[in-house]
Amino acid sequence: MNNHASVPIGVLGASGYVGQELLRLLAGHPGASVVFATAESAAGEVALGHRLVRADDAPLQRAEIVLSALPHGVSGRYVHAARAAGKRTVDLSADFRLSPEAVYGLTEVTRPRVAAAELVANPGCYPTAALLALLPLARQGLIDASREVVIDAASGVTGAGRAPQRELMFGEVAEDFRAYAVGNEHRHLPELLGTLARESGFTGDLVFTPHLLPVKRGILETIHVPLTRPLDQTTAEALYRAAYDGEPCVAITPGALPSLKDVVYRNRVAIGVAPVAHVRRPRLTLIAAIDNLVKGAAGQAIQNMNVMLGLPETAGLTC
Amino acid sequence: MNNHASVPIGVLGASGYVGQELLRLLAGHPGASVVFATAESAAGEVALGHRLVRADDAPLQRAEIVLSALPHGVSGRYVHAARAAGKRTVDLSADFRLSPEAVYGLTEVTRPRVAAAELVANPGCYPTAALLALLPLARQGLIDASREVVIDAASGVTGAGRAPQRELMFGEVAEDFRAYAVGNEHRHLPELLGTLARESGFTGDLVFTPHLLPVKRGILETIHVPLTRPLDQTTAEALYRAAYDGEPCVAITPGALPSLKDVVYRNRVAIGVAPVAHVRRPRLTLIAAIDNLVKGAAGQAIQNMNVMLGLPETAGLTC
Amino acid sequence: MNNHASVPIGVLGASGYVGQELLRLLAGHPGASVVFATAESAAGEVALGHRLVRADDAPLQRAEIVLSALPHGVSGRYVHAARAAGKRTVDLSADFRLSPEAVYGLTEVTRPRVAAAELVANPGCYPTAALLALLPLARQGLIDASREVVIDAASGVTGAGRAPQRELMFGEVAEDFRAYAVGNEHRHLPELLGTLARESGFTGDLVFTPHLLPVKRGILETIHVPLTRPLDQTTAEALYRAAYDGEPCVAITPGALPSLKDVVYRNRVAIGVAPVAHVRRPRLTLIAAIDNLVKGAAGQAIQNMNVMLGLPETAGLTC
Amino acid sequence: MNNHASVPIGVLGASGYVGQELLRLLAGHPGASVVFATAESAAGEVALGHRLVRADDAPLQRAEIVLSALPHGVSGRYVHAARAAGKRTVDLSADFRLSPEAVYGLTEVTRPRVAAAELVANPGCYPTAALLALLPLARQGLIDASREVVIDAASGVTGAGRAPQRELMFGEVAEDFRAYAVGNEHRHLPELLGTLARESGFTGDLVFTPHLLPVKRGILETIHVPLTRPLDQTTAEALYRAAYDGEPCVAITPGALPSLKDVVYRNRVAIGVAPVAHVRRPRLTLIAAIDNLVKGAAGQAIQNMNVMLGLPETAGLTC
Repeated sequence: MNNHASVPIGVLGASGYVGQELLRLLAGHPGASVVFATAESAAGEVALGHRLVRADDAPLQRAEIVLSALPHGVSGRYVHAARAAGKRTVDLSADFRLSPEAVYGLTEVTRPRVAAAELVANPGCYPTAALLALLPLARQGLIDASREVVIDAASGVTGAGRAPQRELMFGEVAEDFRAYAVGNEHRHLPELLGTLARESGFTGDLVFTPHLLPVKRGILETIHVPLTRPLDQTTAEALYRAAYDGEPCVAITPGALPSLKDVVYRNRVAIGVAPVAHVRRPRLTLIAAIDNLVKGAAGQAIQNMNVMLGLPETAGLTC
Repeated sequence: MNNHASVPIGVLGASGYVGQELLRLLAGHPGASVVFATAESAAGEVALGHRLVRADDAPLQRAEIVLSALPHGVSGRYVHAARAAGKRTVDLSADFRLSPEAVYGLTEVTRPRVAAAELVANPGCYPTAALLALLPLARQGLIDASREVVIDAASGVTGAGRAPQRELMFGEVAEDFRAYAVGNEHRHLPELLGTLARESGFTGDLVFTPHLLPVKRGILETIHVPLTRPLDQTTAEALYRAAYDGEPCVAITPGALPSLKDVVYRNRVAIGVAPVAHVRRPRLTLIAAIDNLVKGAAGQAIQNMNVMLGLPETAGLTC
Repeated sequence: MNNHASVPIGVLGASGYVGQELLRLLAGHPGASVVFATAESAAGEVALGHRLVRADDAPLQRAEIVLSALPHGVSGRYVHAARAAGKRTVDLSADFRLSPEAVYGLTEVTRPRVAAAELVANPGCYPTAALLALLPLARQGLIDASREVVIDAASGVTGAGRAPQRELMFGEVAEDFRAYAVGNEHRHLPELLGTLARESGFTGDLVFTPHLLPVKRGILETIHVPLTRPLDQTTAEALYRAAYDGEPCVAITPGALPSLKDVVYRNRVAIGVAPVAHVRRPRLTLIAAIDNLVKGAAGQAIQNMNVMLGLPETAGLTC
Repeated sequence: MNNHASVPIGVLGASGYVGQELLRLLAGHPGASVVFATAESAAGEVALGHRLVRADDAPLQRAEIVLSALPHGVSGRYVHAARAAGKRTVDLSADFRLSPEAVYGLTEVTRPRVAAAELVANPGCYPTAALLALLPLARQGLIDASREVVIDAASGVTGAGRAPQRELMFGEVAEDFRAYAVGNEHRHLPELLGTLARESGFTGDLVFTPHLLPVKRGILETIHVPLTRPLDQTTAEALYRAAYDGEPCVAITPGALPSLKDVVYRNRVAIGVAPVAHVRRPRLTLIAAIDNLVKGAAGQAIQNMNVMLGLPETAGLTC
């Protein structure tokens, strides 16, 4: 619990897209202040008012909570250092998402565990949208495990990071659209399957195919769910409303289905449902949209931080 | 069979995106010349060197073949007039795609019937890509009809036409991505299912979900196929190479999967295959890409016209 | 002066891009609440929590201040109605910008007059950027009136409004760039020249050429200024820093020049300066950037409203 | 003069955007065939049907003409090697544009010299558009040298090359627009001024400011010309029509001004003119548009090659 006017926060990895979003959101947070922010090649520069220092030079003791947006494979070591310094930590990398050391921070699902956690593994962007969309059906045993769930997900380029690479240049991405990691090769699959099993008991198969969109931010997932029994539009929507009753950061869109513009710059998942016509067995198609940098990364990290500190859950966030 | 140096062609509906693409492609056709081009509100204007006349004033007699890119619901009447004037016709609208009056012009599949046809119904853009991708598997009985085929398709905005509407404005489409006609509500579904059944005998279920991309042209379809038996990468590619052996306008991309940039401004379908890992039952994911205005509309119409006239099939086209 | 916890605000014309931006910004304003919002074809719908009513049905009496984002030529009548109802008003249309009835609300320049105004004419988007960039030089007599000032301005599409028109469709704007109103034909020219003369005495000639950018929001103006005497980088920057000392919504960018990404979603003008090499007579090039919907419209209107109410000037705004 | 059915062409530097465009255009050339194409990191790969070899391994002897799209500073050495091997050469880099060793290949202006040249320096993209727009006025003494010519040019990202760099990533360029090399710092300035002086005698001052557009290809230049005497629309257009009478690759757009969509994928410069109102002294604004990869690079190189070989000047090109 926090009694200070402003909780001191440390940000590891502040020069990438996620780190910048953390600084942007924390700049408007009424109860938290950034006390250090790190970068490597940009060390010494000023970003949103903070002089960036190297991660090895981070004054961990000054922070009450450390948020790490360091790259996968690098973050783990610095998170351990922060933990060794006695700091509660939210790790935005993939390094602890499958680890028993950390609480998985899908806030709406694991809130009580997050509140008590010393180390929170912030979910991946794709799993965040997919899990919030699938769990209400999975928990009620409505997904027919004899047919595969198919997820086609499309993400804006900031999901691929800020390091220069040819395939992310404007001349390559503009006017293009492509699938990648086709054939269930994306590293988010184990996180998705594991969490689904743990939080709902569903152990059926799933086909997950990500795509790269020519937009800066946002993820839209089209999720095809085989059902054990038919659900009409009204029933399906009611089921989702009940599942997320009172949740400030989940929007169940009635009738119209959500698109990126409904969620960008917001810490919100928007979910729409549509029963499928002209098929012999019952099916539901879900559309789930998030901002990959907000609810899919920095925003959810702050949401988790707020829960850990006992602050209002949406402090500093627009849901 | 045509013995003239240049076959006279009439174009009905030359002011929309598809009609403009017809004029653009025919301008570079070595064996065909546009003798009239029609438009309504733009009548009197000059487009690519042709003075546009109203469709009611089209000098049908001057053409040997008439291509109609008029809107659905309007085209039928003018196509009948062209037919009454004794003209062989390719209709790019949906008006005859389900009709026994016309030969369905999916060139690679119905070539002999197209050659002899008086009236060709040019396929829809989405069905063109989906059918060319699915038919090789369907014809060999490799699709497991007990599980649904799932198609997520994404199209550039020119697929939605050129009539002004708010939801197609730059301020709405840029940085957005959305699904539409979710729940199997798209009008291309009967064309897709009917042709699949007629050309392969496959009568299983299919879930088709189109999306709107912030690009000008191109369609990418991610097609999830449950299989009756496993196919590895090599076998699957070999099957497609055999099915399209010698076809100038079908590219089976080895290893890397196709994206829009591989097909735009070309009369080509590019198809890639990927077996799906981490699932209990066999599955293949297909990626099929076309330019919605070329192989998905104007290009395929010219390909059909070439077949009808006995000209080289790719005359005037870049495949 | 306002003593209430939250000042009641009426918004006329809430369905266009500017009106929506007003609602979005006012939703986050700590000292103001929207009590009505109007639309015509969208009347009855809900936008950002407000049931839209027709402008003729607006309950003007409930508001303390009325903001009008109605179209040019329409706004005037409703503004007069609001004034007749005794309401202080900020008009975002062009209807009063050249009128002695209203105070011109270029906040940084006319702040004291705005504070006392009953009716404020909110400046046009292009003049806002151009005037804030030119006035510091003009007021010191540094602009050589024997050579013309040349302004090339480029705007995102939301500057052209939300009414559907072909030339603003994604298929037309994406991958394109064009000039319009070339030859000093833009209606913002008299506003620009008139204000420049009134606020600085400068009466030289100016060539203003707007362009349409394939982006959603933002204006960048490249302003070519012939000087009466040379200014080096340091002196020029110092002059701008002095002119805008203490201004929260003006950023003088040192060294690097501003681009759209520095200003979008902010109520800020960013100005950079660069002396011109390889010319015989002294010249300065200014780069000025704003978000056309924020500092160029809705944000500056709220800034003016705050000044009128004696609220903190940036309440509800990110500068 | 060439008597062979197909002239053998060598391409140095085929992996960048310009090199790829050379291969694309040459693939459709009726009288030329690529006999080698080079790349460094991509050596060994196949591009448009050609196995790429390292530039040091290029079989120069097999070509009749060598086109070099190698980078500035690198190209010179390989061009000298091609020359030493007795090959006529078109260099698309900047290495010979200011050198007396080469003929400057602005085809419409220097055609007779190009025809006889052993080495042609292909013009820069920005100077191509600017010079073709300015020379007709400059040659007639219509530009008032006592006031500066101001050119604001905007280019698509392919003009900045294909080497990965952060500032060209989609996440940075999309929704942005920025000026660079402000203050006459662009390296194309000497080429522009020098050619203008040589071809017209004009030696006045010029302010050139390039901008980066969020589009893939295309350059639009807005050129502000102070005149020695007034020119109305009709007279100005007539002057340009006369200057470029019979030129297949120059389009003088009547009334409407050109935009990128009028020129992309074409070897064309489109020029529009507009007299400036509301100024005391006579001025003309010119709008010039080209495709930076075609008329601004690869297309003009092929146009020059055609002239050198005595082939039809637009062979393989769409103007």
